[in-house]
Amino acid sequence: MRTLKLSVKDLLSAGKPGEEVSIKGWVRTKRGNKQINFVALNDGSTINNIQIVVDVPNFNEEDVNKITTGAAIHVKGELVESKGEQNIELAAKEIEILGECNPETYPIQPKKHTLEFLRENAHLRFRTSTFGAIFRVRNAMSFAVHKYFNENGFNYLHTPLITGSDAEGAGEMFRVSTLDPINPPMTEEGKVDYKQDFFGKATNLTVSGQLEGELGAMALGKIYTFGPTFRAENSNTTRHLAEFWMIEPEMAFYDIVDNMDLAEDFMKYVIKYALDNCMEDLKFLSKRLTEEEKTKKADERSMELIEKLKFVLEEDFARITYTEAYEILRNSKPNKKKKFKYLIEEWGVDMQSEHERFLVEKHFKKPVIITDYPKEIKSFYMKQNADGKTVAAMDVLFPGIGEIIGGSQREENLEKLLTRMSEIGIPAEEMDWYLDTRRYGSAEHSGFGLGFERLILFITGMGNIRDVIPFPRTPNNAEF
Amino acid sequence: MRTLKLSVKDLLSAGKPGEEVSIKGWVRTKRGNKQINFVALNDGSTINNIQIVVDVPNFNEEDVNKITTGAAIHVKGELVESKGEQNIELAAKEIEILGECNPETYPIQPKKHTLEFLRENAHLRFRTSTFGAIFRVRNAMSFAVHKYFNENGFNYLHTPLITGSDAEGAGEMFRVSTLDPINPPMTEEGKVDYKQDFFGKATNLTVSGQLEGELGAMALGKIYTFGPTFRAENSNTTRHLAEFWMIEPEMAFYDIVDNMDLAEDFMKYVIKYALDNCMEDLKFLSKRLTEEEKTKKADERSMELIEKLKFVLEEDFARITYTEAYEILRNSKPNKKKKFKYLIEEWGVDMQSEHERFLVEKHFKKPVIITDYPKEIKSFYMKQNADGKTVAAMDVLFPGIGEIIGGSQREENLEKLLTRMSEIGIPAEEMDWYLDTRRYGSAEHSGFGLGFERLILFITGMGNIRDVIPFPRTPNNAEF
Repeated sequence: MRTLKLSVKDLLSAGKPGEEVSIKGWVRTKRGNKQINFVALNDGSTINNIQIVVDVPNFNEEDVNKITTGAAIHVKGELVESKGEQNIELAAKEIEILGECNPETYPIQPKKHTLEFLRENAHLRFRTSTFGAIFRVRNAMSFAVHKYFNENGFNYLHTPLITGSDAEGAGEMFRVSTLDPINPPMTEEGKVDYKQDFFGKATNLTVSGQLEGELGAMALGKIYTFGPTFRAENSNTTRHLAEFWMIEPEMAFYDIVDNMDLAEDFMKYVIKYALDNCMEDLKFLSKRLTEEEKTKKADERSMELIEKLKFVLEEDFARITYTEAYEILRNSKPNKKKKFKYLIEEWGVDMQSEHERFLVEKHFKKPVIITDYPKEIKSFYMKQNADGKTVAAMDVLFPGIGEIIGGSQREENLEKLLTRMSEIGIPAEEMDWYLDTRRYGSAEHSGFGLGFERLILFITGMGNIRDVIPFPRTPNNAEF
Repeated sequence: MRTLKLSVKDLLSAGKPGEEVSIKGWVRTKRGNKQINFVALNDGSTINNIQIVVDVPNFNEEDVNKITTGAAIHVKGELVESKGEQNIELAAKEIEILGECNPETYPIQPKKHTLEFLRENAHLRFRTSTFGAIFRVRNAMSFAVHKYFNENGFNYLHTPLITGSDAEGAGEMFRVSTLDPINPPMTEEGKVDYKQDFFGKATNLTVSGQLEGELGAMALGKIYTFGPTFRAENSNTTRHLAEFWMIEPEMAFYDIVDNMDLAEDFMKYVIKYALDNCMEDLKFLSKRLTEEEKTKKADERSMELIEKLKFVLEEDFARITYTEAYEILRNSKPNKKKKFKYLIEEWGVDMQSEHERFLVEKHFKKPVIITDYPKEIKSFYMKQNADGKTVAAMDVLFPGIGEIIGGSQREENLEKLLTRMSEIGIPAEEMDWYLDTRRYGSAEHSGFGLGFERLILFITGMGNIRDVIPFPRTPNNAEF
């Protein structure tokens, strides 16, 4: 019933010489002379442009002059064989200017712009080849995530963004309120009277859907979340966003080994999906990365992008305990030569990015899963190991990224969980709903969280997390 | 590499008599006598239970006593033919109690609970057949949405939730802040100094990703959003949530007719997906609905659920203008007999739910798309028609639901858009980024928004929107 609209991608992949077609898109570049013009036209469907051949004397001069970078045009004509980059090009018969684009003021010029400049023009950066590629890859990766979980019997669970619970303590939170910001109602004790707020209590933006995810898993069996999460942390780094997308699968009847198997299988699946479905964009991004890396010293350059993705597919992830990792690091050259910024001395310290990258990039030379972390540096809900010192946590570390996944088997024993909560001061009464899963039909279960933007950084080879989300939210920045 | 875990769904669909299997799940019911027990076991993978046959004298009595509704158990045994509802059942050889469930205190008893009661126990309601079915259908519908757009060349765009723009004016917003709630920093003019807030400006939770979506579409061609949106409206109805999921496709080079074609094609695709993939859950939900409707008068009952879904698939949606709808309503029996609560007299008034339902359920008896609404009752960004009075808006109305989709062709002409914004007092300088799409390579484009929960209401036949989202957020309620 729908009229089929052909895209540039359709024309380039399936167009045949001699066909009469109609196409709309934006001009990337125009070159040529008074007789003939070659216009590269793109409509966002692919990294590639279709070349429009304009026999200038056949057209209104004013129209031809309006074919400038960024202009939207409608071209009708005949597909003809091409000797250029693509097999096919379009000999124009009619050209309509849909929307002009003043070359004097258009911010996106047909030249190289810095990523910083494009970040400030995030509303227009989708029109560049680099960001077109990044956001098509991001789209493909989103679909791969849904496809994987769908094929494996998981239920996508939309856990709430606004939360009245602040018990998880995974970080600073944003307050959500409709109270008068200048004169909020106050209690007799001199506190803000959140009973009068929209939800009748103080509410924040969630830092994780995990606790609600556990409720789903303990009934539906296997669930995953894929939605925005928030951190009100004042960290202006290339790795942190105040608003980012997280994927959190949670599985009843999975122990920590099942959890590791799932994480590895999942990561390989989505990487393979990128290789199978995004090769043209990946090739472009690979070239971009290689160009960028030329400014680095040879030994600081990362592996070529596509080679790196294939490499991860082919290797089994190394699996070691925290204690094993600790020993490797303590005895490592950079530790002995005091090259680490944070020297590894006592068992129990958290690992820094430099340690994670040493393990992955220098020692094992492949992704690493570290398990059984000291309980003091991990969350209250993680399953306590028999040694009394460690918990069944797992972090998956990736080359160039460091921690990409964090997860654990969850503590299913009510008494142990209550004891741990009381040790670190989490009031049980506020978490009654969560504890009910351990009261009624408790069972071993596990899950993990994957920062989606970190995955996109890995797949695209981009270096700054602000370049892989459409409109980044960071301290002092909520533009567009 | 992963060890295959069989689900109840796997066993029921592919298990063969004689196979030795192992299964974990939660007890739904137990019946029988001192010799033999029949345990209905469910793991969330399907609406159906596998029957476990327990030869009581072969087991520890204490263990058998712990097999109560809600308990998590692990059963090993042999699949045998069954004469019950399913073709196969499991003759238990070993039973392990994973997690007990005290029948005295467990809120979910093996009896009918009211939806209200289950709403208060939303953390456990996933364990009931009704809510298991609803959330499996919701999962399938989420996947259908992604699959449809993926197959049709759309890019999933993650537009931001936290927004510094309040220009759209689609409703009351939630403020997002990290300032001291009691003593916020103030400007000399006596206002809150949001320059000192986390983002350096006042921020809110978004009511729509459309404006950012347009930026994506005007570069990537076709995009869609699918994420949470927020309304801080104090409406305690069966139709409204403060936090809900919305789907918003936006397409460059689409006019209003393309937009209608897409909306109709999309709705039929996802409904067909439900019929093809969720039949067992739909049958259960249909029975539930029929039961519920027995309390209604015969002429107030809705069509049987599956019949209704098929009906929508088979019919072309009616397409009429607002003016045509106005004439039909003005001359309708309920208007003449003053049965409408809001009588239709003057052209230009907004339609109420009673009018929409009359058109869909009584007059056309199928879904209706109304276009070309008076510009005064629609948003500033909608394309102005040549008549000077109407805009190229479209609302899709569904039986039992009313408006399920709202959309429009967008005004692509910069001057017309600026004039309209100035008429209704939207400051152009705050929307400069949005206006750039009309300055540089503007073109006709269109889009629409679909409230995901309304779709789920339609597919599941549930009557209250709080029953189709895992943890509803409504005035005075942000539990779990």
